[in-house]
Amino acid sequence: MPAPFDFVVRNALAVTASDQFETDIAIQAGRIVQLGKDLAPGLREIDAAHRVVTPGGVDGHCHLDEITSGPLRMADDFESGTRSAVCGGTTTLVPFAAQQRGQSLLAAVEAYRARAAGRAHVDYAFHLIITDPTAAVLQQELPALIAQGFTSFKVYMTYDDLKLQDRQILDVLDVARNHGALAMVHAENADCIAWLTERLKAAGHTAPRYHAHARPMLVEREATHRAIALAELVDVPILIVHVSGHEAMEQIQSARAHGLQVFAETCPQYLFLSAEDLGIDDSYQGARCVCSPPPRDKSNQAHIWRGLQNGLFTVFSSDHAPFRFEGEQGKHPQGQEVSFDHIPNGIPGLETRMALLYSEGVLGGRISAQRFVELTATNPAKAFGLHPRKGTIAIGSDADLVVWQEGPYTIHNHKLHHNVDYTPYEGQPLKAWPGITIARGEVLWDGQFHPHTGRGQLISCGPSSLLPASAIRVAHMR
Amino acid sequence: MPAPFDFVVRNALAVTASDQFETDIAIQAGRIVQLGKDLAPGLREIDAAHRVVTPGGVDGHCHLDEITSGPLRMADDFESGTRSAVCGGTTTLVPFAAQQRGQSLLAAVEAYRARAAGRAHVDYAFHLIITDPTAAVLQQELPALIAQGFTSFKVYMTYDDLKLQDRQILDVLDVARNHGALAMVHAENADCIAWLTERLKAAGHTAPRYHAHARPMLVEREATHRAIALAELVDVPILIVHVSGHEAMEQIQSARAHGLQVFAETCPQYLFLSAEDLGIDDSYQGARCVCSPPPRDKSNQAHIWRGLQNGLFTVFSSDHAPFRFEGEQGKHPQGQEVSFDHIPNGIPGLETRMALLYSEGVLGGRISAQRFVELTATNPAKAFGLHPRKGTIAIGSDADLVVWQEGPYTIHNHKLHHNVDYTPYEGQPLKAWPGITIARGEVLWDGQFHPHTGRGQLISCGPSSLLPASAIRVAHMR
Amino acid sequence: MPAPFDFVVRNALAVTASDQFETDIAIQAGRIVQLGKDLAPGLREIDAAHRVVTPGGVDGHCHLDEITSGPLRMADDFESGTRSAVCGGTTTLVPFAAQQRGQSLLAAVEAYRARAAGRAHVDYAFHLIITDPTAAVLQQELPALIAQGFTSFKVYMTYDDLKLQDRQILDVLDVARNHGALAMVHAENADCIAWLTERLKAAGHTAPRYHAHARPMLVEREATHRAIALAELVDVPILIVHVSGHEAMEQIQSARAHGLQVFAETCPQYLFLSAEDLGIDDSYQGARCVCSPPPRDKSNQAHIWRGLQNGLFTVFSSDHAPFRFEGEQGKHPQGQEVSFDHIPNGIPGLETRMALLYSEGVLGGRISAQRFVELTATNPAKAFGLHPRKGTIAIGSDADLVVWQEGPYTIHNHKLHHNVDYTPYEGQPLKAWPGITIARGEVLWDGQFHPHTGRGQLISCGPSSLLPASAIRVAHMR
Amino acid sequence: MPAPFDFVVRNALAVTASDQFETDIAIQAGRIVQLGKDLAPGLREIDAAHRVVTPGGVDGHCHLDEITSGPLRMADDFESGTRSAVCGGTTTLVPFAAQQRGQSLLAAVEAYRARAAGRAHVDYAFHLIITDPTAAVLQQELPALIAQGFTSFKVYMTYDDLKLQDRQILDVLDVARNHGALAMVHAENADCIAWLTERLKAAGHTAPRYHAHARPMLVEREATHRAIALAELVDVPILIVHVSGHEAMEQIQSARAHGLQVFAETCPQYLFLSAEDLGIDDSYQGARCVCSPPPRDKSNQAHIWRGLQNGLFTVFSSDHAPFRFEGEQGKHPQGQEVSFDHIPNGIPGLETRMALLYSEGVLGGRISAQRFVELTATNPAKAFGLHPRKGTIAIGSDADLVVWQEGPYTIHNHKLHHNVDYTPYEGQPLKAWPGITIARGEVLWDGQFHPHTGRGQLISCGPSSLLPASAIRVAHMR
Repeated sequence: MPAPFDFVVRNALAVTASDQFETDIAIQAGRIVQLGKDLAPGLREIDAAHRVVTPGGVDGHCHLDEITSGPLRMADDFESGTRSAVCGGTTTLVPFAAQQRGQSLLAAVEAYRARAAGRAHVDYAFHLIITDPTAAVLQQELPALIAQGFTSFKVYMTYDDLKLQDRQILDVLDVARNHGALAMVHAENADCIAWLTERLKAAGHTAPRYHAHARPMLVEREATHRAIALAELVDVPILIVHVSGHEAMEQIQSARAHGLQVFAETCPQYLFLSAEDLGIDDSYQGARCVCSPPPRDKSNQAHIWRGLQNGLFTVFSSDHAPFRFEGEQGKHPQGQEVSFDHIPNGIPGLETRMALLYSEGVLGGRISAQRFVELTATNPAKAFGLHPRKGTIAIGSDADLVVWQEGPYTIHNHKLHHNVDYTPYEGQPLKAWPGITIARGEVLWDGQFHPHTGRGQLISCGPSSLLPASAIRVAHMR
Repeated sequence: MPAPFDFVVRNALAVTASDQFETDIAIQAGRIVQLGKDLAPGLREIDAAHRVVTPGGVDGHCHLDEITSGPLRMADDFESGTRSAVCGGTTTLVPFAAQQRGQSLLAAVEAYRARAAGRAHVDYAFHLIITDPTAAVLQQELPALIAQGFTSFKVYMTYDDLKLQDRQILDVLDVARNHGALAMVHAENADCIAWLTERLKAAGHTAPRYHAHARPMLVEREATHRAIALAELVDVPILIVHVSGHEAMEQIQSARAHGLQVFAETCPQYLFLSAEDLGIDDSYQGARCVCSPPPRDKSNQAHIWRGLQNGLFTVFSSDHAPFRFEGEQGKHPQGQEVSFDHIPNGIPGLETRMALLYSEGVLGGRISAQRFVELTATNPAKAFGLHPRKGTIAIGSDADLVVWQEGPYTIHNHKLHHNVDYTPYEGQPLKAWPGITIARGEVLWDGQFHPHTGRGQLISCGPSSLLPASAIRVAHMR
Repeated sequence: MPAPFDFVVRNALAVTASDQFETDIAIQAGRIVQLGKDLAPGLREIDAAHRVVTPGGVDGHCHLDEITSGPLRMADDFESGTRSAVCGGTTTLVPFAAQQRGQSLLAAVEAYRARAAGRAHVDYAFHLIITDPTAAVLQQELPALIAQGFTSFKVYMTYDDLKLQDRQILDVLDVARNHGALAMVHAENADCIAWLTERLKAAGHTAPRYHAHARPMLVEREATHRAIALAELVDVPILIVHVSGHEAMEQIQSARAHGLQVFAETCPQYLFLSAEDLGIDDSYQGARCVCSPPPRDKSNQAHIWRGLQNGLFTVFSSDHAPFRFEGEQGKHPQGQEVSFDHIPNGIPGLETRMALLYSEGVLGGRISAQRFVELTATNPAKAFGLHPRKGTIAIGSDADLVVWQEGPYTIHNHKLHHNVDYTPYEGQPLKAWPGITIARGEVLWDGQFHPHTGRGQLISCGPSSLLPASAIRVAHMR
Repeated sequence: MPAPFDFVVRNALAVTASDQFETDIAIQAGRIVQLGKDLAPGLREIDAAHRVVTPGGVDGHCHLDEITSGPLRMADDFESGTRSAVCGGTTTLVPFAAQQRGQSLLAAVEAYRARAAGRAHVDYAFHLIITDPTAAVLQQELPALIAQGFTSFKVYMTYDDLKLQDRQILDVLDVARNHGALAMVHAENADCIAWLTERLKAAGHTAPRYHAHARPMLVEREATHRAIALAELVDVPILIVHVSGHEAMEQIQSARAHGLQVFAETCPQYLFLSAEDLGIDDSYQGARCVCSPPPRDKSNQAHIWRGLQNGLFTVFSSDHAPFRFEGEQGKHPQGQEVSFDHIPNGIPGLETRMALLYSEGVLGGRISAQRFVELTATNPAKAFGLHPRKGTIAIGSDADLVVWQEGPYTIHNHKLHHNVDYTPYEGQPLKAWPGITIARGEVLWDGQFHPHTGRGQLISCGPSSLLPASAIRVAHMR
């Protein structure tokens, strides 16, 4: 007689990116080992009672404990960030290890490893933010780090302390191509933003809502086209992050129709917020929703939904970039109303991402439950080389699961577990919330948070599996 | 101690439309009941030896024993057709029950049920071909048949004995919308074809290759645009079948970008054949490859591959329409070379569909194994309301499986099991062929065909699950 | 010493489709014979006082005294129509000679010649409306008529008594190609309209505003795409008439980008009216604005302006189709409110076309005066083989001129000279109106109408000169 | 009795951008003063014998005596350049006054005025090349120069010594907008070119043909999209110069469809040369054809012709940038084969521009004679504020005329009048060449060149008249 399983989830309506089936889920040593009905007993069991069980979310875009320029500090570190994530159904995070100019990339990675070590409740990996692609970085450090399992980078086309020149981006993309890594791009034209910002401020327009005026859609569209052209030149796939609206989507669609491998991410803020949330007058309250790209006008939300429906978007991430509203490190420092260009860019979203899309996407009838799983878990795991360990319900995969609890729920910041003093979605009614979150076979959330600081581990990433490796076209110049 | 399973497939590298995992597959009463490693024993077992195991193919577009206009008879009936299918890895077929003008649709369905009854080796369902949408058909017969599980129709925009007027198509689409069925459209402009045919023949151009001249790409593009417009008017999803080339793809892509639910099918002939196969001179040999739409020029094959890669195509079917080359019912009747417009339209392809795409798509590095499963099994099953019973490897699904045998293989007609005296792919080298095909837990092919005539059953179809039902937009006029 | 000129217009600011210059204009025998300052004296002279002088308008799309199906009769014949035209600055009209089914085309032309003979104040030509393209029409009558100077046809894709099947359209286009004529297409999908009309009426929706619901934009877009495809197949230029909105414009633009010779016409009603003018409730007043295609929503007007600016539109015509509102032959026959599909289609516009575009286009700063001339005179004259005799100010051209009078003007029907009891533009404020209209050197309007019934002559048309003849691509099948 | 005219051209078939008419052309004091037949006598007369007479060409893009970086010197100065131009039918040139970094723009203009003074045979104006947009330049010098009649600028997105950053381009465009000037953009992405060049050279690829590899189409497409976005942000028209191929054309077309005022220029090298002319092997002969953007592949020439036909292109210029092949200042300095990136960029073309387009465009049946005039004379004159003085045949315009001589002609460098030792069109057969060129009423070319050094004058330019001023949209941020 075989030993009992460590843990069995009974009567799950398991949903993967392609399927949906009634099953028990047997877990051993944190992994799914058997699927089927009437499985043998477990040392621990819970009854999912025929509720939907999805893979735990993989949030492929979030910022934790990141060292920003100037005195600012992010409100969430690896402890509070993973706590918040798990209470919202996310069981894997991919935050950033950000190089500072002049810094060795290896040193940056070491610094972030240290910041995360022993702090996380759930597993995580790192993207590398490359701000200083020296010869050493390009020729030695990056190849070495890719070999160690840091297989995705992010480059910025804006922000003075982060942005790369086109030529530097080409260099980084070339490393991605030659070593099989995936590059993510923040696409906004820095010069346009600087020019508009100067003009707006000269005209006395400093309220939060001018953040959107300084970064109109075309600023993102232009950089999106440019990023695609650079990737086309190098002949390498890219992932355009936080695509905010129709004009950028058109560029991506056109590229794909021409056979380019361009992936795209969008975020809850482009479905649930609009430029009006930055303020319809000069009130400072809108500072809470300042992020880049900014939310667009309301009519644009329909375009983003369409892109989630028709396959344009590959992944759905939070871009959690947590700054408090009040307090020294906040958006309203010492109660001062600063000019829009000095408001820290970013909003919290780790905990609300999954429920917002499940509620309005799946239960709102806009996307299937399978597409929800694909966008929030399977595709991010594939994109960043974490699949099939993460992002699905399958034999051998980590037992990262969410049992969904349908029923009315209202988002209030006091219910959330991040370290931020507000949520941009305050008062938003939902149709469901994660009832139970299981990470590697351990229940960390069941309406109560059950902390397990330090259990989360740094995962080594493989190559992106969104594409068959050989599907990449041969470059025209080689 | 539990009873042993009926059948266990050991050591499978199971591939679904989203995942890939090492597992045993336990089968009871023809269904998959357990997944995991080291499962309990089965009464029968086979060792997949870590080879790829995919769901059995679902061929959503094939013609078997169809009554055609005139004296012609198709070469394959439900026995030979399902035999050929299963030896090529396809375990579910969706052929057509074709109404004849003046005939009750119910009578047509009865006739086809009778033709199939007791003949098939594997399961099948029927699409309805509607050629005479009378009030009785629209108001009574179709709703009744949909309720009985005949949930997909096909309408033709060409062929004198089949084609509907736009207004009739609107009527049929409206029934699809109101009763939750899926309409498939053969999109070619009949008037253009007739006009060109008349001119070509007047000029003495009767060789097989003029078939392609009589049906140029724009004839398909126009009808594709029109079909989309009709569906847009009625506000109902449609599936454009056998999309052959770039111009039609552009119409579909544009429609999707505007939020329309337009699905698309392509077929092996648009990847592996070209207009040259109809003849580069007036030789009659090209009659073997006469099908509609015709294969396009070679450069077009790259566009079709691209559409398989980037998500434009939803399903990959054979459009098996079997006519012998020689013989009374053939393309070369009594050895006579008939004018291109009298050559029966259609080519055999049931048995070669899966291996062609697996070999050149998956092993050729163009698409992932998951995408292969999606195109050949999961999506057709979803499209036609057969999922999750068919089209995947999951708890509760029918145990329809293919164990792939990699290694050099050359297509020769003498190895195939259809009732046709040629294959258009004669001599085509492949990198793999189905090693074992299992249908509802029974091995029907393992290099030898193990017939089980009559085991295949007519399946009742549910609504298409490609879309969440509520994702359908509200019509503008209602 | 040379004899004095018949007539000299002094101090004109002459505008052509490309230029603008100060000049006197000397006229002899109805033609412009000299340009320059300080020209020799004329027997008659007027001082244009440095005001803008444009070529007289060429209205390439208007219906006069046309025999319609049923008992209806158009309100304007060649006398009242040309009277109205000249008072609005139009000096050449191209109405239609409409074949009735079963009628010889030659007989139709004779009938219309007779209706016009001795009635017109200004010159005119005829387009042929082909409703019954028999072999005799295609092979004998049309070629003969083209040779006689009837070089443009119109085909309808809608209206039961007018519409041609696609195959018939191909036949007509082929004659156009082989004999160098220009085909105009009324592009709306008849089946869609019939289907929608039946549904709307079944739902009790019969008010005028449902006219727009029965002919939504996609009905026009579809037929536009189809017309382009048919012309592409035959490889012949076409002119899509009365393009009403953005979706049809996109089709035309795309065709041109692919190198097709597709010309486009729009009309004042798509700039100055909207669907709201058909009624925002079930009031019958909107019957006055029932025309096909119907005016679209207001936001669409900006697209039409854009097409006038960026070159998409080739000609700007009235589509004058005059029906009285009250009276036996009117839209409100015997005071009865008929269902939208029984309201005669068409609105008056001959007299207002030029001033509406000059006022809001040129003086409103949207288009240059040169572009105004191109759209209203030069291009229509070129399109229909009347240039350089008509449509410009040049040596040898007919002295058809408009001296513009800038200043506030309000459109009121009582000021107009047609035989219709309303104008759809009642109350519309303008910035200018033609001060003087000269036709072949005779002043017919100077604030007073100076009739000269019968002076207008039927003009024989040459081939269209919008294109160099040899620019037409060689058809793919020849 | 009036005094005789200075000069009368008898029996001209005069062609303007819109018309074509038989006329005599009477000239007084260098201007056209009368048109008509049988005009009064002139002191001098020539008989055009019913041949085509077009306006003299306006070449809106040429480089004369420009100070380039390094020791290079252009081969043509204002004497030889205008000599060559007039012998090829061009009577107005708009070369560049190029600011050097650190130099005052006023000083640059003065320097170029001095270089031109007393040297030119025909009239000329200057575009300003802005390489150092300091506050003084933007706020004082540019507005002052615009007011003086220097109403067009050029900005470069590539070349180390010329290129501006996006933000600088925005500053310059803003001046253009506020002061009514027209900005021209050389659109190629400098970073991409530098990156590719480095790689090519590292691989030992230095032959002339690698010039095209270093500047592939996407490099131009990207910059074209970016330039359009910058102009859209500032809300100002722009002119994209030397558009070389399809991908850039698509960007322009898409912008126009969205209502943006984007004008485009192309040049003979994109119609008559291809990348093969840079060499199909590593031969150095291709250095003669090195210009930027480089000629594309042959199939691309059809796209350029299409753009000339369908209105996409606004102007057709030479981009004459004359460097000798042999000699110290040449492309083959001291007989040395330098790396492709050190070959001076530019080819001669002033003298061949008109005849190439007249021969293959007009006489080849691709474009009408009117469109030829529009592209080569009227539109450039309008674009740069020289119309109606230049670019047309109209009362009051300068008597700049070309009498065309049809008949076989072969381009040989020894027949040309520039100071360059080759022409890229050596051996090209033509169907016509300018028979007589008249500049301000003086015959400078009639098969023999009749020099009149210093007669050409600097012309003050007005605002661009391609658009009605008020057609410019109101910027979103103002």
